Amino acid sequence: MNENKILRPTTIIIFGATGDLAKRKLFPAFYNLYIDGRMPKGFNILALGRAENTDEDFKSYIKENLEHFSRKKLTQEDWAGFQAHITYFRHQLDQDSSYTDLQKKLKDFDTIYGTRANRLFYLSIGPNFISTISNHIKKSELASDPKKDRIIIEKPFGHDKQSAIELNQLLSETFEEEQIYRIDHYLGKETVQNILAFRFGNSIFEPLWDHKHIESVQITVAEEVGVETRGSFYEQTGALRDMIQNHLLQILCMVAMEPPATLESGEIRDRKVDVLKSIRRIPADKVDHYAVRGQYGKNTINGFDAKGYRQENGIAPDSNTETFAAVKFYLDNERWQGVPFYVRTGKKMKEKHSYITIQFKPLPNSTFSDTQHHLAANRLVINIQPLMDIRLQFMAKKPGLTLSLEPVEMIFDYFVCQEDTPEAYETLLLDALMGDLTLFMRSDQVEEAWDVVKTIQEAWENNKDASFPNYKAGSWGPDESSTLVERQGDKWW
Amino acid sequence: MNENKILRPTTIIIFGATGDLAKRKLFPAFYNLYIDGRMPKGFNILALGRAENTDEDFKSYIKENLEHFSRKKLTQEDWAGFQAHITYFRHQLDQDSSYTDLQKKLKDFDTIYGTRANRLFYLSIGPNFISTISNHIKKSELASDPKKDRIIIEKPFGHDKQSAIELNQLLSETFEEEQIYRIDHYLGKETVQNILAFRFGNSIFEPLWDHKHIESVQITVAEEVGVETRGSFYEQTGALRDMIQNHLLQILCMVAMEPPATLESGEIRDRKVDVLKSIRRIPADKVDHYAVRGQYGKNTINGFDAKGYRQENGIAPDSNTETFAAVKFYLDNERWQGVPFYVRTGKKMKEKHSYITIQFKPLPNSTFSDTQHHLAANRLVINIQPLMDIRLQFMAKKPGLTLSLEPVEMIFDYFVCQEDTPEAYETLLLDALMGDLTLFMRSDQVEEAWDVVKTIQEAWENNKDASFPNYKAGSWGPDESSTLVERQGDKWW
Repeated sequence: MNENKILRPTTIIIFGATGDLAKRKLFPAFYNLYIDGRMPKGFNILALGRAENTDEDFKSYIKENLEHFSRKKLTQEDWAGFQAHITYFRHQLDQDSSYTDLQKKLKDFDTIYGTRANRLFYLSIGPNFISTISNHIKKSELASDPKKDRIIIEKPFGHDKQSAIELNQLLSETFEEEQIYRIDHYLGKETVQNILAFRFGNSIFEPLWDHKHIESVQITVAEEVGVETRGSFYEQTGALRDMIQNHLLQILCMVAMEPPATLESGEIRDRKVDVLKSIRRIPADKVDHYAVRGQYGKNTINGFDAKGYRQENGIAPDSNTETFAAVKFYLDNERWQGVPFYVRTGKKMKEKHSYITIQFKPLPNSTFSDTQHHLAANRLVINIQPLMDIRLQFMAKKPGLTLSLEPVEMIFDYFVCQEDTPEAYETLLLDALMGDLTLFMRSDQVEEAWDVVKTIQEAWENNKDASFPNYKAGSWGPDESSTLVERQGDKWW
Repeated sequence: MNENKILRPTTIIIFGATGDLAKRKLFPAFYNLYIDGRMPKGFNILALGRAENTDEDFKSYIKENLEHFSRKKLTQEDWAGFQAHITYFRHQLDQDSSYTDLQKKLKDFDTIYGTRANRLFYLSIGPNFISTISNHIKKSELASDPKKDRIIIEKPFGHDKQSAIELNQLLSETFEEEQIYRIDHYLGKETVQNILAFRFGNSIFEPLWDHKHIESVQITVAEEVGVETRGSFYEQTGALRDMIQNHLLQILCMVAMEPPATLESGEIRDRKVDVLKSIRRIPADKVDHYAVRGQYGKNTINGFDAKGYRQENGIAPDSNTETFAAVKFYLDNERWQGVPFYVRTGKKMKEKHSYITIQFKPLPNSTFSDTQHHLAANRLVINIQPLMDIRLQFMAKKPGLTLSLEPVEMIFDYFVCQEDTPEAYETLLLDALMGDLTLFMRSDQVEEAWDVVKTIQEAWENNKDASFPNYKAGSWGPDESSTLVERQGDKWW
């Protein structure tokens, strides 16, 4: 996030370079950073994979995929420049010799750079392999300089609090906390980062940002897609772990955090942990009151048959994995006393839409408090994706001869500002190259977030009788989700 | 302003019906109200003039002008319906017999209506004739029913405090205060009326609406035109009397007033008078510090010669009448302590633009308070005309890979809401027909507003050495106008 940080020569080592994430996100991100002149002057991408590949084979595979997935158009000239930085490296995750070869390769690069380069390890592999790789990196002393060497890992960061603690413990044997970049791509999104700017770069919002002025906060991350090819992974995960524990709680932190004194990553991450700590833990016997789970069933959408979750590939026909989750949280701190934070996420929802709604309190008794004027409370909507805008709903005079009021919207459209917005991965990879940890999750953030959902996890695991499926593919989730907010006189906006 | 008020049969008596205002504003407003079904079921417009005119002559003159000045298209059918309600009436302002005839005519109408109709007297004549007409109305008992009979008068309401008191005294001999509709067409504008809705129909603006959050308020009413055909009138008036004492102070009242408990006209007008009373009077010897006057000189604009004020028709070649005025006011009340209210108005300005700027305080020391981030303070702009919108300027993250901030705007466009916005005169005439006084000026408002500008008036009259002309036609006024705001580190936005 910081303009001032310096880019040193860097070797980027991608474990799992032939995988889906690398082709869709990582190479396109590096390519676009390269075109923008954002890559370090000296850099090499060492693409690790099991398969026997020539450099040429691998590069032509990457080129083909860039044509699909790159934000900026692939040109002959840019490609020629970029591809020279890619080396395919055949690698066996579990073989000592493979890491010795890797060490040699890294030293060769250092010779070319004329300096011991930074090393950025990207673990684009399943969580099962983290321990193997981490241990080998330690053994081969590949990441021995804590100032220069960094590791990026993808979620899931464990599958519950205990396993997260163990994973962090494991990583800490090889890496110092400052070397570990736990990526949550939601935090790289422009509209999510803008929450900081919006709240703390202006004098007019912060005075309204508390329980005295805000009635409720809603965070929705709705996906239109189902589990697609991730069935067997998702079956073990579910919406609570896959989305709420990370993306939604992280967004909640951005909305609810106290003003950080500075933009230092430690300061910002401290303030986020404060929020997680302040979230009131839901008692085991109250989970049904505060949390709702759902699983989509089959439906006919626009004349097409849409499968139910239990009919998807790799899913048990009696699966109890939730594809939808909604939770009502309270924060026990001075700012947010009594303000419900509703979060929900689901697959096969009516539309793809991620957004935050700040619902302000209704007007106290006022000039317009009579039966003639139906005053809608003010509402601020921060659209994250696919819409990227901020909307403020307020009451205005309806044009015409009488003083009638109607709700209208003020809109700030992020796209109008600049159509060519960088992808979240570009932002996050550049931050990692520069050594800026702000947008990455610290071990205590991860553990605390698991603690927040712990009782819900356990209750849902202990009670298998979930009455699934309970919402139709292409809907807004189960009825209970509406009940959750309606009990308080709210509704999902 | 109130939907619930009832329209009773009404005879509208226009004094000066052959004049400029009647043809440009009054008849078009009545015509459009008629098309919208807003006129009373029974109504007649009695058009009074000195000239000998047949009904047909006069109606064809009105029809011709409607083609130019009506907001809605003139159609054969609507005109046929509307014109049947117009009667030309030859009238001598100063002859008793003329009023006897008028009384007879009014009674004829009452016979047709089958009831003693309401009477709405519109004095679309010079201020010199008010006394004559008012006295004759009294003598002939034309407006003897305070519940049914109303009089609308146009500004100027006197030319200083003393003359305003005398005028109000004079009117009070014939009319009760509730019968007197002092029209300020600025208050009929949609965007000005919306200030009430905006401030008191929402919960999120009022907490910010005070000296703790607002740095300064600016009100600009800039005209692109010069004095045109009004030279001899304007020569006796000047910008302070013509604009600041009424339009600008009225807008200031809307921005600064305390929340009225209800929408009752008495309540709203009380709150406005409170504001006028709280305006700190400028000491006679400090006028130069708080107020700036200007007069436009000749210039070449886009290759065309633009006359200076002193070269206009009917203007003395050494005239000291100001065509520009800017004043800094302070309000001595709890809400506005220390907040400067800058108002300015001028003729032959760079562009026609009326708007209000609420400049919020700069951010206190914050997350972004370092040298990298140049934070613009938040600003709310209410555009009155010709733009009709509300803009909120705030800082947002600049799309891109680093966390840089830039000022952006959220916009609510009134025109998008409804292109077909009624003219101010339609709103105000309908209010007068319904007996709603809210948007009209009460005697104490007028007198208090004169009191506010009293010392400035006197200082400018006593010191004829104004160094005019001091701004070029087509500019933003004299340099001293900028100095006025710059002394406080502000600028005109």
